[in-house]
Amino acid sequence: MRVGVVGVGHGKFGRRSDATVQELAFEAYREVLDDVNNLDRNDIDAVIVGSSPEYHKQRSLPGMITEYLGLNDKPTWLTEAACASSSAALRSAYMAIKSGLHDTVLVLGVQKMTELTTAEIQGLMGRVGDVQWESIFGITFPAYYAMYANKHMETYGTTSEQLAKTAVKSHHYAAKNPYALFQKEITLEKALASDYVAYPLRVYDCCANADGACALIVTSDELAKKYNDTPVWLEGLGCASAPISVLRRPDMTSIPSAVAAAKQAYAMAGVGPDDIKVTDVHDCFTIAEIIALEDIGFVEKGGGGKFEEDGQAYIGGKHPVNVDGGLKAKGHPVGATGASQTVEIVKQLREECGERQVDGADIGMTHNVGGIGQYCFVHIYKRS
Amino acid sequence: MRVGVVGVGHGKFGRRSDATVQELAFEAYREVLDDVNNLDRNDIDAVIVGSSPEYHKQRSLPGMITEYLGLNDKPTWLTEAACASSSAALRSAYMAIKSGLHDTVLVLGVQKMTELTTAEIQGLMGRVGDVQWESIFGITFPAYYAMYANKHMETYGTTSEQLAKTAVKSHHYAAKNPYALFQKEITLEKALASDYVAYPLRVYDCCANADGACALIVTSDELAKKYNDTPVWLEGLGCASAPISVLRRPDMTSIPSAVAAAKQAYAMAGVGPDDIKVTDVHDCFTIAEIIALEDIGFVEKGGGGKFEEDGQAYIGGKHPVNVDGGLKAKGHPVGATGASQTVEIVKQLREECGERQVDGADIGMTHNVGGIGQYCFVHIYKRS
Repeated sequence: MRVGVVGVGHGKFGRRSDATVQELAFEAYREVLDDVNNLDRNDIDAVIVGSSPEYHKQRSLPGMITEYLGLNDKPTWLTEAACASSSAALRSAYMAIKSGLHDTVLVLGVQKMTELTTAEIQGLMGRVGDVQWESIFGITFPAYYAMYANKHMETYGTTSEQLAKTAVKSHHYAAKNPYALFQKEITLEKALASDYVAYPLRVYDCCANADGACALIVTSDELAKKYNDTPVWLEGLGCASAPISVLRRPDMTSIPSAVAAAKQAYAMAGVGPDDIKVTDVHDCFTIAEIIALEDIGFVEKGGGGKFEEDGQAYIGGKHPVNVDGGLKAKGHPVGATGASQTVEIVKQLREECGERQVDGADIGMTHNVGGIGQYCFVHIYKRS
Repeated sequence: MRVGVVGVGHGKFGRRSDATVQELAFEAYREVLDDVNNLDRNDIDAVIVGSSPEYHKQRSLPGMITEYLGLNDKPTWLTEAACASSSAALRSAYMAIKSGLHDTVLVLGVQKMTELTTAEIQGLMGRVGDVQWESIFGITFPAYYAMYANKHMETYGTTSEQLAKTAVKSHHYAAKNPYALFQKEITLEKALASDYVAYPLRVYDCCANADGACALIVTSDELAKKYNDTPVWLEGLGCASAPISVLRRPDMTSIPSAVAAAKQAYAMAGVGPDDIKVTDVHDCFTIAEIIALEDIGFVEKGGGGKFEEDGQAYIGGKHPVNVDGGLKAKGHPVGATGASQTVEIVKQLREECGERQVDGADIGMTHNVGGIGQYCFVHIYKRS
């Protein structure tokens, strides 16, 4: 049995003080219903919600959302893996269908972050690191990724200009993505002149917190054609973990969970890096995109910065990456991000991306890191 | 392919200020390793953690726990469904194995609650209800279940004595369970003399918050015999949702998600209520046990109070229920409770429960409600 994504829905990412978390979910659900043919609510057998619950006042999101969407008494639960929570939901949907327990699953990635202050968010984010030995000393997310950046610069000569060029690319594509938070281009000079957040990472090296939701309809090959003429198949799934503690990381220039997850996904899909035509990687910071390129084998270790500098991650380059704007410029509502990556790759494989379309995109990949590297989920998708 | 539980581990439930959340997980992990034969860490293909993350300072529990248990780089993620979080993990483990994605999965249910004050816990618990329209007015968990109790009493004549007798039974069995929080018997008089928490529920009608962890090793029939001579098979799985809002509940004398989940589980396992020899139900309050008996079809609607009064839920009665002490007297570390129920039923089906053993227990059931009824997971287990 093959498992495929037959419907995708993407809500607007941004500061969404106009909507509660269940209303954000509804926005994505409405989009996915518009996207898929002949789908009745009775065709949905389960609702798997990917989210990080700690950001929300409303607990029991799957309960609140299934009620709000009129989907009781469908089975529902939540998956969490920090910033990879909805990739865990997609993996669970794959398992549910392949196991025969469910035929068709609605995956919802949803997050409302901006009800909290930036300080509260940074405090929460720091607590995905080791609370006992690290976050207690005040380390937050930018500081963790600054360690990666400093070590990568020291070891491989990666430069601030290479980081900034990565940001310029993200904004270039986000300007063409109606769902993105920052729909505007930036210049290299502007990026390099922005303030430091955590040396060497500047404002434009960091993704922005956001609110938003995405929805996916996942089903078996037996049913797929009923719902969509061009289903996109989930053919490779990788998932791995790595130590949270910096102390226990052998190397701060790589995310070992990503290396392991990519290896699994390639093996399962029977493809290699050269077969991947379009990719979304987890660029919570520009350095994270550079490291991702190396971890998934698009470039040799240490070559990520040069790859960006040479424009190889643009459409037309060797590996178009994050041509939806990435977390960096699209915004990063943590629980929605994995599903958002899937929406983009599915649309690319369906050739529905307009001026952002990658020609000949028949195989795509998503790389979704959780926390500071303690999880990574890699998915490989095929058009046929 | 059949999927079975081949190893169970149960940590001590209680106020565990001696242990961090990862240390609680280790305690259960050590127990499960002692329980299963020939299991090497390399045999574990994934770690699924069931927990409600909002109670913990340490976020990213699956990351912290896999690191602490030395299980990197195994795939790992968290499932959440309020008090049914580790039943969602067991369901996910079933799907993972049956789908062929993994051979053997470690399920960990873990929760540390007592770092928070009772007021903080009650505030958090209230937020699994509708935050916008209900919890904002101060309603907490006992108040929700008091509504069930009042309506059940009004409709069916259920009495305070019947509630108290349910508590007496729970304490009777918890006194024989070395993992339980309250290992002491209580009298009917003591229960009936205890203070009201939310009328008509008294102190002894309410379960206690606790810290604790449980672990399960789940695998396929192909591998099961390698690890255990008496695997217990997971043969029926039910899961359903119901509206969170009291406003949208058609009836406050029943939990419709439980009725639906039980129906699914019976159908899948090919058995009916009369076939179930031993059961753990979700008795967060005594009234919840009485309603559960009706929802899963052990007694006709409205007959739950009389069933308890007549002692039919004791060993030797028509349906022995919660002979481990239940949430009521064993304690209720929310993320660990579903897995704890599974540990009990697996041990009963293996005939390892000593003076609490139910004779001829070849088919068992767990009924695990999440929140105030927005989820229910029902599992049916068979010895052969």
